[in-house]
Amino acid sequence: MAVTALAGGVGAAKFLRGLLATVSAAEVTVIGNTGDDAVFHGLHVSPDLDIVTYTLGGIVDATKGWGVAGDTRNALDQLGRLGIDTWFWLGDKDFGTHIARTMWLAEGVALSAIAERIRVALGVGARILPMSDDQVRTRFVTTAGTELEFQDYFVRHHHAEEIASVSFEGAAAARPAPGVVEAIEQAERVIICPSNPVVSIGPILAVPGIREALRSARHKVVAVSPIVEGAALRGPAARLLPVVGAEASASGVAGLYADICATFVVDRRDAGEVARIEALGLRPVLLETVMETPDVAAALAKEILALDLDG
Amino acid sequence: MAVTALAGGVGAAKFLRGLLATVSAAEVTVIGNTGDDAVFHGLHVSPDLDIVTYTLGGIVDATKGWGVAGDTRNALDQLGRLGIDTWFWLGDKDFGTHIARTMWLAEGVALSAIAERIRVALGVGARILPMSDDQVRTRFVTTAGTELEFQDYFVRHHHAEEIASVSFEGAAAARPAPGVVEAIEQAERVIICPSNPVVSIGPILAVPGIREALRSARHKVVAVSPIVEGAALRGPAARLLPVVGAEASASGVAGLYADICATFVVDRRDAGEVARIEALGLRPVLLETVMETPDVAAALAKEILALDLDG
Repeated sequence: MAVTALAGGVGAAKFLRGLLATVSAAEVTVIGNTGDDAVFHGLHVSPDLDIVTYTLGGIVDATKGWGVAGDTRNALDQLGRLGIDTWFWLGDKDFGTHIARTMWLAEGVALSAIAERIRVALGVGARILPMSDDQVRTRFVTTAGTELEFQDYFVRHHHAEEIASVSFEGAAAARPAPGVVEAIEQAERVIICPSNPVVSIGPILAVPGIREALRSARHKVVAVSPIVEGAALRGPAARLLPVVGAEASASGVAGLYADICATFVVDRRDAGEVARIEALGLRPVLLETVMETPDVAAALAKEILALDLDG
Repeated sequence: MAVTALAGGVGAAKFLRGLLATVSAAEVTVIGNTGDDAVFHGLHVSPDLDIVTYTLGGIVDATKGWGVAGDTRNALDQLGRLGIDTWFWLGDKDFGTHIARTMWLAEGVALSAIAERIRVALGVGARILPMSDDQVRTRFVTTAGTELEFQDYFVRHHHAEEIASVSFEGAAAARPAPGVVEAIEQAERVIICPSNPVVSIGPILAVPGIREALRSARHKVVAVSPIVEGAALRGPAARLLPVVGAEASASGVAGLYADICATFVVDRRDAGEVARIEALGLRPVLLETVMETPDVAAALAKEILALDLDG
């Protein structure tokens, strides 16, 4: 079954690894968020794409959920010795990826072509597409009026700042990367991974053409709630949902996706949300979504693929 | 005693470490060769400056004579995994230096200001100046007519190619870096380190203004022959001297420096060269120049500083 998945970082990567236990990698296309891309020390870092690529390539640091397993931090330490602020952790193997990406970008290679080179080189069978080759950057304004870039908010300040608004700089002028719209159109099933709806899936949907393609494909789109019992399993989703006017609940997420997906997977613990999700015009499906082990992720993916969307 | 030294890479660095056993670091200025600078994987590498800085900072890989002691090669391996040709060895700590330098250059910081930042951060007391902030690149043409960049010739082809000509691209338009001419003018003693006269000292002398400053200071300039018994202790000097019309001997080197130094140190093994060096108008001094241990380097430097140049 040809499957296209919209993905953020760690949660999506876990799910996608589970997905590949059921469907062959050649049938899977991942559309990744690049809104949290950033330049560190002159190098272009694509955190979400790399998390997905490293996870599917089997080299991710499984404890952290990002970075390369067994990586060292000699380059970062040297930068620190040279007086450079190194609050963003970058391992040496990871630096290799960023050095290559930056060099290729400088040569005029598109981010999507670079993502393709990297995933092929790392033996990842699934296609990994950035949402856009154009620059889109997630920005925050705190309730105190301070502007923050994504990694400032997310890593440096451990998403502790209270946020008043989120924006996706550059999104209005961005175009979907080559193959993104086609991957949505041609898939038998589109899955919105259990990623942060505001800052992981949000930037993807902000690229003109992608939301429209999903609307047209709504009947075959299944979203998985990243919110269980009102809380995010990881990260600041629960605190960011109210910033975009949504409740911090599975129903709140369902409301954001109501126009783009017909089926909405919520955790069994949230059976009480079913009626509200139905009221939004979505078909709720109760499944075990807390991916504490790869087996749970694989079972979740298998059940989603087995859903009869015409039923 | 205020000492200014013209330096290439490994041989110069060994000598300079010996020099600092006698003279305080604050009195030493090093003018380094940047003709073999190169861009690898989008990063600006300054091999000779780094060898000197790492050596004086006490972190050099003493076995190789370059790179950082105990460095790992994870970034380079990752670049290799991504299909990039990694014939030029770069350790992870070393990558940190190149990443910082490249970032600062992109911000518009001059190479000399960057060299200053790095040597201060690494605790090097001696001032280290690149010969120029402008780009000068050593190029070769082989006898077969092939053009080679410096690192191609030196590292990739292990200086095995037969060379027909050497040129310093950009040298004619380059200006000495801030402080270079003053360091020559104001020094009590100027030492031309035992480095390759063609491709380590040659590029420095090719920057307009530097050779002239040395000519004016000739009485206080002491050069150390890198050629002992007709052979270079390291590298291709003996094969490159004939390319610039010089004999592969201490006298051949003395001939290249006749206008810029009054005193020429040759190894005791080359006592037979004394008459020819005198005939070139230079005062020959016989010393032990083969720096097999730091003690020999320190003794050599001490004797050079003790020379009575007015005698």
